[in-house]
Amino acid sequence: MRLGKIIGNVVATRKDERLNGKRLLLMQPMRSDRTPAGSPIVVLDSVGAGASEFVLWVSGKEACNPFGVELPVDACVVGIVDQTHVVR
Amino acid sequence: MRLGKIIGNVVATRKDERLNGKRLLLMQPMRSDRTPAGSPIVVLDSVGAGASEFVLWVSGKEACNPFGVELPVDACVVGIVDQTHVVR
Amino acid sequence: MRLGKIIGNVVATRKDERLNGKRLLLMQPMRSDRTPAGSPIVVLDSVGAGASEFVLWVSGKEACNPFGVELPVDACVVGIVDQTHVVR
Amino acid sequence: MRLGKIIGNVVATRKDERLNGKRLLLMQPMRSDRTPAGSPIVVLDSVGAGASEFVLWVSGKEACNPFGVELPVDACVVGIVDQTHVVR
Amino acid sequence: MRLGKIIGNVVATRKDERLNGKRLLLMQPMRSDRTPAGSPIVVLDSVGAGASEFVLWVSGKEACNPFGVELPVDACVVGIVDQTHVVR
Repeated sequence: MRLGKIIGNVVATRKDERLNGKRLLLMQPMRSDRTPAGSPIVVLDSVGAGASEFVLWVSGKEACNPFGVELPVDACVVGIVDQTHVVR
Repeated sequence: MRLGKIIGNVVATRKDERLNGKRLLLMQPMRSDRTPAGSPIVVLDSVGAGASEFVLWVSGKEACNPFGVELPVDACVVGIVDQTHVVR
Repeated sequence: MRLGKIIGNVVATRKDERLNGKRLLLMQPMRSDRTPAGSPIVVLDSVGAGASEFVLWVSGKEACNPFGVELPVDACVVGIVDQTHVVR
Repeated sequence: MRLGKIIGNVVATRKDERLNGKRLLLMQPMRSDRTPAGSPIVVLDSVGAGASEFVLWVSGKEACNPFGVELPVDACVVGIVDQTHVVR
Repeated sequence: MRLGKIIGNVVATRKDERLNGKRLLLMQPMRSDRTPAGSPIVVLDSVGAGASEFVLWVSGKEACNPFGVELPVDACVVGIVDQTHVVR
């Protein structure tokens, strides 16, 4: 899993019908020190993440879908991060 | 998911028969600020994307196939992007 | 599989309910010569790894879940490394 | 999917028995402008690709195997490219 | 699939019990011209590869497991390479 920050959203009227009603968010992948890592990607939200929130996300269609569900997505938010503790 | 722009197509007469009749498009992966990110790839289209359109795409065979379907593809277009909103 | 070192943990109160009670650790990916490789990621722990331990981890939801289990994770610790032997 | 050019083959006498009789080709990944992209990899051929041919390939075990088949491969050729049209 | 050279092994006493009795090898990924590519990784061996041997390996849990088997691994050796022929 990786960390990220919600920075916006994507509007797509014509799309795979399985995405109807789903929230597609624009997310900046982040390092654990909260600096940006690479370019923003689009993630499915299922935990109610809002703009500027620091999130935990996973990649891979299987990780994003409970068994038997078939959303055509490859990255999704699975948690809102309260804190990261580093104990090097 | 990531963003991209359709820039052409690929013609392959000899191919896996499961790809017969499928649209194989050449797509330039793009950042959310609409600048190019890396080299073009080939994607399966299932939403009717046309040349120059800005699209949302996913990677992974599972994300591209409804359960039980078996197209040998690893990237596909799942939506036409109307707008991206950034609220940093 | 790759090597890594546990450097902390992540606290997320609002999260996918399937992650309730799971340990989410912050891990620095490491090379076999025990130098850091890239940025820290978040991994699920199922072997009781503690801070500063050198671990073996795998990526991919399927590798992290016994068949039929459905945790939405894409990286997990599968062992505590005692030694690496190099015989070039 | 990505493009590539067949540049040779790999001979392995001792191997996973599921690979017996399979063609393992050495392939140079290519960009759509037919310049090389990265280092050569090994791909399974199922469409009869020959040396110097420009091909379309996919990655991921699932994309390479019809459902229920179990070849331990993660990249395969799925078509011979006749032409790529770019219409920027 | 990619090429690699076995350079050692990993000892892990505390580990996922499904890894008990499995050989975990340290492998240097290699290019087809037998130069190193990136950092060593850990692979599961199922063909009896020994130190210094040049091997063929695959990534992804599915590629490494016959259907129904559930080893938590994401890379494995599938063959010992005798020769690579390049015919550019």
